[in-house]
Amino acid sequence: MEAEAKPFIEHLGLSSSNDFFPSEAPFLAFQGKHNSCQITVVTNGKDTVHGTEVDNVGTVPAALATFLALQKLKGKVDLLINAGTCGGFRAKGAEIGDAFLTTATAHHDRRIPIPPFIPYGIGKIQSVSTQQLASALGAKMGICSTGNSLDMHDVDQKHITNNDASVKDMEAAAIAWACELHNVPNFGIKVVTDIVDGEKPTEEEFLENLHSASVKLQEVLPQAIDYVCGKDHSEL
Amino acid sequence: MEAEAKPFIEHLGLSSSNDFFPSEAPFLAFQGKHNSCQITVVTNGKDTVHGTEVDNVGTVPAALATFLALQKLKGKVDLLINAGTCGGFRAKGAEIGDAFLTTATAHHDRRIPIPPFIPYGIGKIQSVSTQQLASALGAKMGICSTGNSLDMHDVDQKHITNNDASVKDMEAAAIAWACELHNVPNFGIKVVTDIVDGEKPTEEEFLENLHSASVKLQEVLPQAIDYVCGKDHSEL
Repeated sequence: MEAEAKPFIEHLGLSSSNDFFPSEAPFLAFQGKHNSCQITVVTNGKDTVHGTEVDNVGTVPAALATFLALQKLKGKVDLLINAGTCGGFRAKGAEIGDAFLTTATAHHDRRIPIPPFIPYGIGKIQSVSTQQLASALGAKMGICSTGNSLDMHDVDQKHITNNDASVKDMEAAAIAWACELHNVPNFGIKVVTDIVDGEKPTEEEFLENLHSASVKLQEVLPQAIDYVCGKDHSEL
Repeated sequence: MEAEAKPFIEHLGLSSSNDFFPSEAPFLAFQGKHNSCQITVVTNGKDTVHGTEVDNVGTVPAALATFLALQKLKGKVDLLINAGTCGGFRAKGAEIGDAFLTTATAHHDRRIPIPPFIPYGIGKIQSVSTQQLASALGAKMGICSTGNSLDMHDVDQKHITNNDASVKDMEAAAIAWACELHNVPNFGIKVVTDIVDGEKPTEEEFLENLHSASVKLQEVLPQAIDYVCGKDHSEL
């Protein structure tokens, strides 16, 4: 979301890259150099189609933005980091404000009960291994399960449990899919805004904690970039 | 799905267009001339990412294929027709084998209960008006509700009812979104493979009737193409 990305873009002193995406796409790109790395930050922009003035959340814009960005930067991307917020599961040790690095991503709302389609629907993709980065950041690690809804009903819950997820979001598995098509290694840094298996409805807790989670993301992301720049993937 | 598209591609004598999509995309395109029209048929290809050998069903591949195709054919597309199968609701007059033309599309599995995000999540988009085409084809008309699952649980059902849907599928609303970004008029021709509010589980009935629905689609699609070619949108 733009509110989450803005402080990070300012921190790194990136410039808006106006012709990065085709004019039909609502997405935004910001580029610049940080230490030895060329960095591109992509946000999914606002909903121009329905005119609701909200951020383009969910899997469809996320996959499209990722595919188009990787196509534009073909052959130049060493690593993609999906940075954002998530819901966390207390049963898996998540607390509000925790930063999680993804170990894998999967979908929980693509139920296609015809045997060969089942693993396609789940669409599990391994993230780059980031054990050392997690230690350096004081971050937790776990699987992120993706669905297009902010809330969670009992059928979602069953599939999230099957995915062995520590956190849930609305984009990660779709971003990872687009990365796989381009053979680009990727992982997610996700800060917990709400406890899904807690007492409060997700939407209330999400709005209460979005600001503090964004602040946490602004602390962790620059540290992650500093750690990652100039390192081989095996050093993460 | 490829099995649905193949007879139609052969009927129109279209040729495979190998460099149509970026090499990273799994999608396929077939092109040719029919009467006064240039026609491009796009299929979403097979799942190369998870290697499951199944068709890339669901909203993410559908939106990406649509966006990339419209970008490739920028300024040359008068109309996009989303052709495929769907589940139908008996309560809205649907029967197995019926062809439905979409009047609008919406999502039923993007629940974001924060007020400004609600209409974005539903993402309702009007289809091109096709009253005259429907009469010519003997097709029914109705709203198509899209979700990434073949099955339907009670929460989906509530949202499908709110969308006033006659049929449900796994792609239409995402295809319409990508069309809106390119300002390309579109509608769906969807043949009913299963009755969602009937007695049999969707997956059983879907597999039983996929072949006969594909045959029906092969009858209706060429008739629709013949009717549409050379006509103004106001004549549909």
